Amino acid sequence: MTTPHPFDQAIALTPAGPHTYSGATSPAYGNMVGPFGGITAATAMQAVMLHPQRLGEPISLTVNYAAALADGAFTLMARPVRTNRSTQHWLLEITQPDAQGEPATVLTASAVTAVRRETWSVDDEPMPAVPPPDRVAQANIAPHVAWPQRYGMRFVTGSIPERWDGQGDTSLLQMWVRDEPGRALDFPSLSALADVFYPRVWLRRAKPVPTGTVSMTVYFHAGAAELAATGSGWLLAQARGQVFRNGFFDQTAQLWNEAGLLLVTTHQIVYYKE
Amino acid sequence: MTTPHPFDQAIALTPAGPHTYSGATSPAYGNMVGPFGGITAATAMQAVMLHPQRLGEPISLTVNYAAALADGAFTLMARPVRTNRSTQHWLLEITQPDAQGEPATVLTASAVTAVRRETWSVDDEPMPAVPPPDRVAQANIAPHVAWPQRYGMRFVTGSIPERWDGQGDTSLLQMWVRDEPGRALDFPSLSALADVFYPRVWLRRAKPVPTGTVSMTVYFHAGAAELAATGSGWLLAQARGQVFRNGFFDQTAQLWNEAGLLLVTTHQIVYYKE
Repeated sequence: MTTPHPFDQAIALTPAGPHTYSGATSPAYGNMVGPFGGITAATAMQAVMLHPQRLGEPISLTVNYAAALADGAFTLMARPVRTNRSTQHWLLEITQPDAQGEPATVLTASAVTAVRRETWSVDDEPMPAVPPPDRVAQANIAPHVAWPQRYGMRFVTGSIPERWDGQGDTSLLQMWVRDEPGRALDFPSLSALADVFYPRVWLRRAKPVPTGTVSMTVYFHAGAAELAATGSGWLLAQARGQVFRNGFFDQTAQLWNEAGLLLVTTHQIVYYKE
Repeated sequence: MTTPHPFDQAIALTPAGPHTYSGATSPAYGNMVGPFGGITAATAMQAVMLHPQRLGEPISLTVNYAAALADGAFTLMARPVRTNRSTQHWLLEITQPDAQGEPATVLTASAVTAVRRETWSVDDEPMPAVPPPDRVAQANIAPHVAWPQRYGMRFVTGSIPERWDGQGDTSLLQMWVRDEPGRALDFPSLSALADVFYPRVWLRRAKPVPTGTVSMTVYFHAGAAELAATGSGWLLAQARGQVFRNGFFDQTAQLWNEAGLLLVTTHQIVYYKE
């Protein structure tokens, strides 16, 4: 009997009624407080993938981190609210009991799935010219946080500052990244990878201020064929901030496979202190 | 007695119960089929602005266009699902009666509001160097669609193709834009302006294929002070697609005020045929 991949253990869900699943946080994907936001996004996507009424494949996912998820069990609701001929709209919610034992909302999400058809297509955001992954060194990642240990990360530019001297001048990050150990790419793992970047404000300022993602949106440009062609290969992940203002910054990011196909474009808005 | 601005007429809502408002589509903002998606986004934002329990100002808005809104009346629900010390998470839904008279979901949305505090801030996406609005000609807009008549639009680059010859090579659009007649900028009007671009695929291909926005996310980087400073002035609006693949393309866009301050970053995923 093979031990499941830690990612599959982390996103495991048990049916618990109509449109309802039970899950639990995984220490393997723990962050400084609670779980890595990407694994929570992946779990929401997994509920859509498991749902017997799903139509087509994911086109978009928006997750709103309403409160810190506590370590332990949670309830995930995933409900198709509108099914058209070729598109379907989903609402999702994660709850945990509050101090009185009543379910309290810790995450809301929406997703769209669709039956894709082959059309005229073009990539207008070319993969940046960077050295191949076997020419880039594995990052030295802080061992006191669990989730980054679950990824191979090879920074081309924008690695975590070695000196927190407040002298940053750019937020651009480019890295090769993949699940560690290797795992064939799917929609839940792409959802997690969309959130794989350490906070842009840390790099821009060379200052590790407290942060927390408030909302993330992921657009999927890959279908089953492109995922299969990517397999467990490296992805080039690029992220930068466009504006940092009065407690919130945005991040715009892209994920290409090693062949240069743009698989995901994604954005988030992040709280920062000071 | 002054006639209200067409925008205020279009987003007008009447309280209709707890967390519930009644509204109606406005012919002044009509699109080829149903209303302009931007005015629907603005109406959702207006419900949040009107809600007596609102905490702070908008940080993000995601609207999912689940079905074509029919011309006429609709019901809008806006509910704060989690209120923290300085942030608040909202779920919104627009319904219209289906053929059996039952409420059917035509739009879902989520929003985050927050009390902003002054912090270290920087704009990392500078406004492109373009001629000022008084040096750019007003666009000649198709008179058979209502909503574009509600905006002043002065194209710097990427105006609607004059020849649909299938020979496009870029999706980049830059234009000066404002409400017409002038109206002081607020969060609902910024929400509409986030969707003010004609479809990127029309420009990229120089081919007017059928399209429809599936999901749009708007991040607000302006607070009340920045909105007041902008007033009814021109905004520089920039949009481009990153990838067009098998029936869906993305759009990434920015809105700056004339002084060069980045007010909004926004993204959408759009269905296209062929």
